[in-house]
Amino acid sequence: MGSWTTQNDARQRRLAAGGQFAQGKAVAVDKLTSFLEAVIHPGDRVCLEGDNQKQAQVLAQGLVGVDPQKVHDLHMVQSGIVLPEHLDLYERGIARKLDYSYSGPQSRRITTMLADGKIELGAVHTYLELFARYFIDLTPNIALIAAVCADKHGNLYTGPNTEDTPTIVEATAFKGGLVIAQVEKIVDSVPRVDIPGDRVHFVVETGKPFYVEPLFTRDPALITETQILCAMLAIKGIYAPYQVQRINHGIGFSTAAIELLLPTYGEALGLKGKICTHWALNPHPTLIPAIEAGWVQQIHSFGSEVGMENYMAARPDVYFTGADGSLRSNRAFCQTAGLYACDIFIGSTLQIDLQGNSSTVTATRTAGFGGAPNMGSDPHGRRHPSTPWLKAGEEANPDMAPALRRGRKLVVQIGETFGDKNTSLFVENLDAILLADKLKLELAPVMIYADDVTHIVTEEGIANLLLCRSSAEREQAIRGVAGYTELGRGRDAALVDQLRQRRVIQRPEDLGIDLLDADRRWLAARSVKDLMVASGGLYNPPSKFRNW
Amino acid sequence: MGSWTTQNDARQRRLAAGGQFAQGKAVAVDKLTSFLEAVIHPGDRVCLEGDNQKQAQVLAQGLVGVDPQKVHDLHMVQSGIVLPEHLDLYERGIARKLDYSYSGPQSRRITTMLADGKIELGAVHTYLELFARYFIDLTPNIALIAAVCADKHGNLYTGPNTEDTPTIVEATAFKGGLVIAQVEKIVDSVPRVDIPGDRVHFVVETGKPFYVEPLFTRDPALITETQILCAMLAIKGIYAPYQVQRINHGIGFSTAAIELLLPTYGEALGLKGKICTHWALNPHPTLIPAIEAGWVQQIHSFGSEVGMENYMAARPDVYFTGADGSLRSNRAFCQTAGLYACDIFIGSTLQIDLQGNSSTVTATRTAGFGGAPNMGSDPHGRRHPSTPWLKAGEEANPDMAPALRRGRKLVVQIGETFGDKNTSLFVENLDAILLADKLKLELAPVMIYADDVTHIVTEEGIANLLLCRSSAEREQAIRGVAGYTELGRGRDAALVDQLRQRRVIQRPEDLGIDLLDADRRWLAARSVKDLMVASGGLYNPPSKFRNW
Repeated sequence: MGSWTTQNDARQRRLAAGGQFAQGKAVAVDKLTSFLEAVIHPGDRVCLEGDNQKQAQVLAQGLVGVDPQKVHDLHMVQSGIVLPEHLDLYERGIARKLDYSYSGPQSRRITTMLADGKIELGAVHTYLELFARYFIDLTPNIALIAAVCADKHGNLYTGPNTEDTPTIVEATAFKGGLVIAQVEKIVDSVPRVDIPGDRVHFVVETGKPFYVEPLFTRDPALITETQILCAMLAIKGIYAPYQVQRINHGIGFSTAAIELLLPTYGEALGLKGKICTHWALNPHPTLIPAIEAGWVQQIHSFGSEVGMENYMAARPDVYFTGADGSLRSNRAFCQTAGLYACDIFIGSTLQIDLQGNSSTVTATRTAGFGGAPNMGSDPHGRRHPSTPWLKAGEEANPDMAPALRRGRKLVVQIGETFGDKNTSLFVENLDAILLADKLKLELAPVMIYADDVTHIVTEEGIANLLLCRSSAEREQAIRGVAGYTELGRGRDAALVDQLRQRRVIQRPEDLGIDLLDADRRWLAARSVKDLMVASGGLYNPPSKFRNW
Repeated sequence: MGSWTTQNDARQRRLAAGGQFAQGKAVAVDKLTSFLEAVIHPGDRVCLEGDNQKQAQVLAQGLVGVDPQKVHDLHMVQSGIVLPEHLDLYERGIARKLDYSYSGPQSRRITTMLADGKIELGAVHTYLELFARYFIDLTPNIALIAAVCADKHGNLYTGPNTEDTPTIVEATAFKGGLVIAQVEKIVDSVPRVDIPGDRVHFVVETGKPFYVEPLFTRDPALITETQILCAMLAIKGIYAPYQVQRINHGIGFSTAAIELLLPTYGEALGLKGKICTHWALNPHPTLIPAIEAGWVQQIHSFGSEVGMENYMAARPDVYFTGADGSLRSNRAFCQTAGLYACDIFIGSTLQIDLQGNSSTVTATRTAGFGGAPNMGSDPHGRRHPSTPWLKAGEEANPDMAPALRRGRKLVVQIGETFGDKNTSLFVENLDAILLADKLKLELAPVMIYADDVTHIVTEEGIANLLLCRSSAEREQAIRGVAGYTELGRGRDAALVDQLRQRRVIQRPEDLGIDLLDADRRWLAARSVKDLMVASGGLYNPPSKFRNW
């Protein structure tokens, strides 16, 4: 019989080898590359954090610098491919295989590298799905993570950007793996313990903060009147009748418009306290006016947002905060909350086909999934009822016995019929299919599948797909809100008219919304500066958003 | 404008009031009830841990003892209703409302109390779903939790039974709530930090371990030959052709039989290394022979199991263990793993209707859901492919374009056609519907819905519901494995024959399984003592399972 402790034994060897470069747990940054060569073995599964927002960029640079003769064939399992270094690892022959979730800023380069066979792709995941696999078949041997500061015992303070760190560390540290953290500073005592020191084996003091990008900031000045109209449709035609209180918003100007219309248009409709009270949401600055107007009871966040730190610290009744006063985010729990505790997901997309499949990929860019497919799916494992969920279920299956009829999650896709560069939102075939073909993927990277989407909102109206009783009706319902796009013009006018009679399609006028009323007056803030003012000066926008 | 810090202010007041009864963070057990009266306010949302396995029973007793004039109208949000005290709270007028997941041992009493209106029911959840709501709309004001020991800073060691604790604490401590832990002992230094002390406000030293029940131990001596036949069918007819490696087993003798047949029958079929390598699973003692035979690469666990501690500590290559050497369990992550990273769920049930809805409730017992509906559902948010998932998806939708065709999770219900007391597994109408009617629930407590179940296994054969193309076929496929039950006898013999031709139904003989071969020789352990021997004496069965 062989050994049952090979992983712990390997960790002991790594600790001894790494200890040569360390004082206690502290590794000097100038020894980083030699240290990594000593502790990482060829073929290791490595999580280089690599989140949606924060990046362990010094460790990434250190890893890119190792000798590929010594460290090679790494299998990277990380949620975000964000920094150039994340892909340089493959160019340099250090890493070979990749399992990931999101690659926004690197979406073009990763597509080329995948097509050229420079990266062996495991799969593209949602965040929660990749985290799940950390505990089953993609457990890291090495975690390279980022925090704000550490004490000499390795206790870590992540500050507001806790994000993926607890999940990565739990999977690695409790399965014989090695956890290495970059921190700006080693201090006597951390403001709060985000990660206990006995799960952290080495700490690299870098003298600078980890890299973080303001991903969820949208300038109200760039919101169009069409987006305002769509927001009015969503609030009056979906949020109000379904009474959605527990909500998740995707990223984009359409949802930013909704956020900015709550305390104005929503208020005028008498909806305060009735909708949008509980959120799974990144700290969107565009939600500040609604929060200040008392609309929001509680928000749990996936991550933080640059500039929102002081505002959130001053609003602990709304945000989750720690003993130190600052935000505590947690992507795994917030994704779980979005999946199982929210009644609606609403987000933008780039392409929708005639059955309602949607995708944000184009043939040259594979941005990955992030969290949207998880939040934008109907969770069959849900068992607790709520008003919106039951109403949606009844619309979908009116003839089923109520006791055996599950509810449905509301999954809404919102967008202008003609988007960026005047391209049509509605397409015969998703570019995702072309991309799957090009990259020889087993599945096209569909963001939201047709069987999960319940509503499509454009400036022409709302298509309620729950009320469609056939594939043909579904197609006409989608064509019926596709405006002057080619697919919109291809509608069967008589059928679309019938669908409108049945309220499968609702036009602005059907909802008593005057097109002329859809203007910027409704925006509770019309600029980033307005948001700052609305926050009482607590919101501190990043310089790239300061144009005053 | 009102205050934005009401929750933190309330916590400060609670800390001051509780501090009167504490030295540092330590509260003496004889002051417990007065202490709880000081820190808990009427109407508070309280999580009294309350897991599947471990129980904060001293805190439960303390809470039952408070003066209902002082503490009343509590809203309990806890996953397990296990101890009599959990229900005494309602009898005594201390608690009013309940949101929960599982109530196995109290299932009869809770049903009566619900019917009598003594408990205002929020909803019955799956574990992960309740955890999700902790971050959205059911955040506790007070968490009463259980650990093994604490240091004076409040750092907690949970030992192998970490279970729900990190999730409860995160939701409570970071949202202005108060965390109170019972521990057996306050020590100088904890063996490992399962919960950082800055999230723990008070610690009650009880001098005795928390209560824990061996829920997942099944005595191999009680496994029937019919269950062995079902296990052979599952292994040869499902595990082998779908090549399921990432797996979750429910509780029960049927799945215990499968576990015990892996190193014998599975070995004979040449399946070692090809199936059942990665698990989301409680530490089932019946898996010991398969582990010892080298079948299992890795197991992540929801909780621990009494008597398995030393065995798991000696097998860290298989189990997740901490720096102290003992198991680290985590229910939230393991449920996530079961949902998104496993390709199959297989479990037993009490009743199956003719469309395939199944339930474990009877008209007098509502045991809640636990984790099965989460694990036993097809996760629409999943995006990574695998062999079993793709094969199941193809069987369900053979005509769909492969690039747009998602896979399917395998969800298998296994059982004898006649169960306990000779009652039929197959029923016209689930008792769950009667119960919903009696308790005026909006939904019947269905464990697995028809649209999620993919296979039903009985001693008569396997019904593959993925291959059914109509509701009528589905009904006959189910009748076709329902044996001599009334519904089985009501089959359309010609249609069932056709389904067998199409391999929708597979009989033992169709799979080359000889009924006479299904005997106890295949069990890798035939008693609890055999399990202990197989573990090399490391497994230490609880006394109630020691009959030698």
